[in-house]
Amino acid sequence: MSAVARKIMRRIIALASITDEPGRVTRLFASPAMRRANKLVAGWMREAGMKTRVDAIGNLIGHYAGEKPAAKILLLGSHLDTVRNAGKYDGPLGVVLAIAYVAELSRQKIRLPFAIEVVGFADEEGVRYQTAYLGSKVLAGCFDRRDLRRMDTDGISMADAINQFGGDAAKLKTARLNPKRLLGYVEAHIEQGPVLEKNKLAVGIVTAIAGQSRCQITFTGRAGHAGTTPMNLRRDALCAAAEFVLAVEKQARTTTGLVATVGQIQAKPGASNVIPGQVNLTLDVRHQNDSVRRAACLALQRVARQIASGRRGQAGWQLVQQTRSVPCDAPLSRLLAETVGKHQCKVFELPSGAGHDAAVMGGITPMAMLFIRCKGGVSHHPAESVNTGDVRIALAVLTDFVQALANQT
Amino acid sequence: MSAVARKIMRRIIALASITDEPGRVTRLFASPAMRRANKLVAGWMREAGMKTRVDAIGNLIGHYAGEKPAAKILLLGSHLDTVRNAGKYDGPLGVVLAIAYVAELSRQKIRLPFAIEVVGFADEEGVRYQTAYLGSKVLAGCFDRRDLRRMDTDGISMADAINQFGGDAAKLKTARLNPKRLLGYVEAHIEQGPVLEKNKLAVGIVTAIAGQSRCQITFTGRAGHAGTTPMNLRRDALCAAAEFVLAVEKQARTTTGLVATVGQIQAKPGASNVIPGQVNLTLDVRHQNDSVRRAACLALQRVARQIASGRRGQAGWQLVQQTRSVPCDAPLSRLLAETVGKHQCKVFELPSGAGHDAAVMGGITPMAMLFIRCKGGVSHHPAESVNTGDVRIALAVLTDFVQALANQT
Repeated sequence: MSAVARKIMRRIIALASITDEPGRVTRLFASPAMRRANKLVAGWMREAGMKTRVDAIGNLIGHYAGEKPAAKILLLGSHLDTVRNAGKYDGPLGVVLAIAYVAELSRQKIRLPFAIEVVGFADEEGVRYQTAYLGSKVLAGCFDRRDLRRMDTDGISMADAINQFGGDAAKLKTARLNPKRLLGYVEAHIEQGPVLEKNKLAVGIVTAIAGQSRCQITFTGRAGHAGTTPMNLRRDALCAAAEFVLAVEKQARTTTGLVATVGQIQAKPGASNVIPGQVNLTLDVRHQNDSVRRAACLALQRVARQIASGRRGQAGWQLVQQTRSVPCDAPLSRLLAETVGKHQCKVFELPSGAGHDAAVMGGITPMAMLFIRCKGGVSHHPAESVNTGDVRIALAVLTDFVQALANQT
Repeated sequence: MSAVARKIMRRIIALASITDEPGRVTRLFASPAMRRANKLVAGWMREAGMKTRVDAIGNLIGHYAGEKPAAKILLLGSHLDTVRNAGKYDGPLGVVLAIAYVAELSRQKIRLPFAIEVVGFADEEGVRYQTAYLGSKVLAGCFDRRDLRRMDTDGISMADAINQFGGDAAKLKTARLNPKRLLGYVEAHIEQGPVLEKNKLAVGIVTAIAGQSRCQITFTGRAGHAGTTPMNLRRDALCAAAEFVLAVEKQARTTTGLVATVGQIQAKPGASNVIPGQVNLTLDVRHQNDSVRRAACLALQRVARQIASGRRGQAGWQLVQQTRSVPCDAPLSRLLAETVGKHQCKVFELPSGAGHDAAVMGGITPMAMLFIRCKGGVSHHPAESVNTGDVRIALAVLTDFVQALANQT
């Protein structure tokens, strides 16, 4: 399997050379680079004995037939688009790994009691149209047609981009998968976090894709001259915000599994010699248990108000977006865990704090995810790195997992 | 004196209509509005029995002769330039008040044992060339000729602006005042802070113009994914910065007379779903005692390092600018205090946290300042407001103060 793992790594590097921005890895939805990427990966799929198609939104799908023509379908895959100036592994690894697995089946002339379809999703990152999971939403039948009117920064509507790419914005429904024919969806993906590395483990089983609350918070005090306003007469909005930032950290540190982040902060008027009269900041809260997340948000909202009123100011709270946690399928995950136990000293479970196509696919079929260790937890960055030994283990896990599934069927 | 106070207020309003930006009060150094303002004010000066001149940098000076031709000179005044979208009183009040006082002398045909010169300084705010006190620096002989090469946002050098205004950039030295001929400089100015209002007092005596340290501080941690990085593995630069903001507030609250402000803050990369890896912020520290200010800065620098290292990060500290405290002249201030005592229930002393032309003039002659209450401490804003009763008291104080000085001479 080491040779196959090395081949996977070579393919990852080949894919990374296909970009919309020379000198760095950027593949946007329905872009010229995505067309070339689909072409390259389709070639690998056919080499692996699959029939390929590109659906109405641009998802690339390779079909490896089962023993019988009417067999159910196990979906494997991940996405082929990237963020701007991306790493090589986020997305492509899951696709290339699945193809390599199918190639081995094909080489050994093995047919399973179900068909396998490997999906290279057209858009998971949502960079071009500021809305993510376009590919999986179309397959899952939950695509919002109003999104077709969205414009990219060049003024090209999503509908036009889809049609120019060779898809058909008017017929996205034709790409919908029939849930009754699906056995499940399994996605391998880099962790994009430091937990597996910290635990010295190659792979981990995802328990759920965490729910997320995104809030916009405003602390209002009173602006004033930094030289002439004594400390006891100030209503400094930044001091209130600073208390809140530390309260957010404390809340998350004292709640198992909770992560909470203030990523943006802006003080107004924003001059070095003026006491901030207003501070805007963002809050991102995630947990695999929705009730824990909601309780944390409520607690923080209370804290924000207390801090503000203690400083004779005000706190404004706006919930910008809220997504529910998507639990991974228990039977599939249990089987995945048993398989991992054969290839790694420890079976390790962790939630996914980042979103994935799997969260959308989980809406129509049992879903499981395998995380692969990445160096330093770094992702969405050229320094993103995965080692070949870990890819070999992931490939072995995937192989044994699908075989075990076949044995059950 | 009430009638005179009302006349002062009408003149303040008239001056406020002279602007470089229609619809709001903006008079920049050597601008068309400054030319019109000088012309208007020069008329008032001549009406008050003064001979007027505009010096090489554009300061407007009115001379009211003393009993003898070779008499010493008492300087009164303030600045006629403003910030953008300014209030009406910051600067003009001190000039118009002094003219009104001299007008009364002239009306009563009183000559003092010294001459009086009322100065309308050409640039105190430093808006156009990002460097303040141009007018007073020329009078005090400490103007830095390298500043003549500075460009405004329209690409006009300071030298060209001075010459176009009718001054002479090559002969700024001719405008220097001879310190030996000066008796002192006394400036009346709005407080620009809330202390007098809080104490229910019309006027206060300034003890010193506070020294100031301006620092740029950078906290460095490690950026990371807000969803995938557990709290215990984070090195959040914004949490470090938040601790520091509160430490700054605590330091100032526990040090009498110290004010310290974080006015600007920027988190990088600055996305709602990314843990801040770097935070830049500004620190402004002021105190009338330089050693107290320096000790506070040193203490805060230590605190910044401790906070950063406690979070496995780093703190960078850069001193951007440092100005020393300028104490007001003790005998002049004592005389001013005695006079205030006759017109107000309480003699109240306070430092000036903001800079003034008086700080520069203090370098060549004994200097004193009288602060006048302003509503809510608001300044550098259209809402800047002073009441007529306070102006009447300030005029009475100025009148009796100069008379007391004359009695001493």
